[in-house]
Amino acid sequence: MRVLIIGGGGFIGQKIAKALAKSGTLRGQAITHLELADIAAPPTVDAPFGVSHHAVDISDKAQCDALFQCNPDVVFHLAAIVSGQAEAEFDTGMRVNLFGTYNVFEAAKALGTKPVVVFSSSCAVYGGEIEEPILDWTHLNPQTSYGAQKAIGELLCTDYSRKGYIDGRAPRLPTITIRPGKANAAASSFMSSIFREPLQGQEAVCPVTPDYALWYLSPRKVVENLIKCAEIPAEKLGENRGFALPGRVGTIGEMVEAMRKVAGDEPVKRIKWEPDQRILDIVMGWRPHIEPTKALALGLTADDSFEDNVRYFLEDDIQVPAA
Amino acid sequence: MRVLIIGGGGFIGQKIAKALAKSGTLRGQAITHLELADIAAPPTVDAPFGVSHHAVDISDKAQCDALFQCNPDVVFHLAAIVSGQAEAEFDTGMRVNLFGTYNVFEAAKALGTKPVVVFSSSCAVYGGEIEEPILDWTHLNPQTSYGAQKAIGELLCTDYSRKGYIDGRAPRLPTITIRPGKANAAASSFMSSIFREPLQGQEAVCPVTPDYALWYLSPRKVVENLIKCAEIPAEKLGENRGFALPGRVGTIGEMVEAMRKVAGDEPVKRIKWEPDQRILDIVMGWRPHIEPTKALALGLTADDSFEDNVRYFLEDDIQVPAA
Repeated sequence: MRVLIIGGGGFIGQKIAKALAKSGTLRGQAITHLELADIAAPPTVDAPFGVSHHAVDISDKAQCDALFQCNPDVVFHLAAIVSGQAEAEFDTGMRVNLFGTYNVFEAAKALGTKPVVVFSSSCAVYGGEIEEPILDWTHLNPQTSYGAQKAIGELLCTDYSRKGYIDGRAPRLPTITIRPGKANAAASSFMSSIFREPLQGQEAVCPVTPDYALWYLSPRKVVENLIKCAEIPAEKLGENRGFALPGRVGTIGEMVEAMRKVAGDEPVKRIKWEPDQRILDIVMGWRPHIEPTKALALGLTADDSFEDNVRYFLEDDIQVPAA
Repeated sequence: MRVLIIGGGGFIGQKIAKALAKSGTLRGQAITHLELADIAAPPTVDAPFGVSHHAVDISDKAQCDALFQCNPDVVFHLAAIVSGQAEAEFDTGMRVNLFGTYNVFEAAKALGTKPVVVFSSSCAVYGGEIEEPILDWTHLNPQTSYGAQKAIGELLCTDYSRKGYIDGRAPRLPTITIRPGKANAAASSFMSSIFREPLQGQEAVCPVTPDYALWYLSPRKVVENLIKCAEIPAEKLGENRGFALPGRVGTIGEMVEAMRKVAGDEPVKRIKWEPDQRILDIVMGWRPHIEPTKALALGLTADDSFEDNVRYFLEDDIQVPAA
């Protein structure tokens, strides 16, 4: 069992790598080798099997094809230009998110072994003039270039699977919070930073009002779910390989109160409320009310409460202890 | 007003060219030049304005960019590898239908003039595990590579329009019947040939049973609707630029009886009923029950009866008089 993680330098990729290192198995088979690929060579991970590191630009077909010479049985394709950057730099987003993803599916197809490919789609595929709650068969109606590129990736994932070229799975990730590390160019970046920075003793700016609602999942749960996505038998997935992951809906205000319950008043005081129209223009197009019926039937799960997300962050990811 | 028709050698492209030559105007402005492009230089059309002819492979970015030096105000992008061929030759379908369409949108964007682009999508974007009737917000769930490529083209069309790069419109064409000319590699080819060939005195094979139902539109109406699609003001289209064109639902049996009413018993006797699993595998994934609410509100229209379609064929397109 050889596993390839594209986007293996990102925080989800690294957490999947560590989880696989801990379990040592995937799909009931011992892992013999792990390949971590990203635009820059990813940090290594201690593991009971060999780990290789690759600096690869998947938007370059030759580089992508060369990467697949490692002959993976399971591929996690997590690499993407995030929403804010894909909106600001249209060509970059198209090149990586559309053509890079196409190159990944083409390279997987060229193996001739029908590898399992877990492609991380996003709840950014929803939006605009659609009814809520969002069901498994709700029209994908993205309101950002990032969302359009993810929806296109899902269509390709399903068609390559239907043709028997790959065994694809395209779970739509909720907003992941509380993410570790630093703020990034994702329009959703604040949905972690307003908790992470205060819990780490720093101030953070919230660009939306407390009544803004989002569909979220913790890093711990998304890693658990993505690994489960690789393990689900193909026959249980049906024809359509894109589906929403389970998550919880909550307003920013409710989430802040959950943080207060776990960590007290001090972190809450470190949030500055300053609405930002550029962020609002993107995130107001997203939809929080999702019923992930298919994912629940497949055994995928959400967090029990946002208090849990705060606790997971304190257990797994906090980098600077609160003052 | 300069008009470019990509796929201008196809029968719909030629009919649009002739209709524009007759009216002399589009979007309320006099047409000054018409550019007809196709993989082979299209036949000329008599017109009161200049007509140029281009042999262009749109899957070649340089050729596509060069074509757009004609600086069109309105583009009809009708070129495609048809369903049966895109299913049999996956790489060819992806190259032309996905990357060719991307090249067209990119070349239109590069003009900087936000041209109107009418992209012919298809009712092949529907299928699989979806509810009927199909509404404007039904999930696009294609069951063929052709349908997936058209759905991707719609997502691009909407995103390029949202970004202000083009003013796109992506009407989903019903099955067009009765098409003139010869049978082609489209899985739907029989839906014209079983009427066209008998009306022209020849035998034809029907690969489905009489109870097979389809969503159809005549060539005359599709041309009228595509020209209307170019003329609809952008503000009436809303955010989402993909929508089903009006059509009629009928079974092959009902359509054959309509032909009998218009043309008598002899043509009906020339149909040979021979079910073909390869065709059935594709066309049984399509859906005939569509409610094109948005298109009807935009003033687009269907035929009044299949008898009309037979009459239109006899008036406009018959090439060999029936014996």
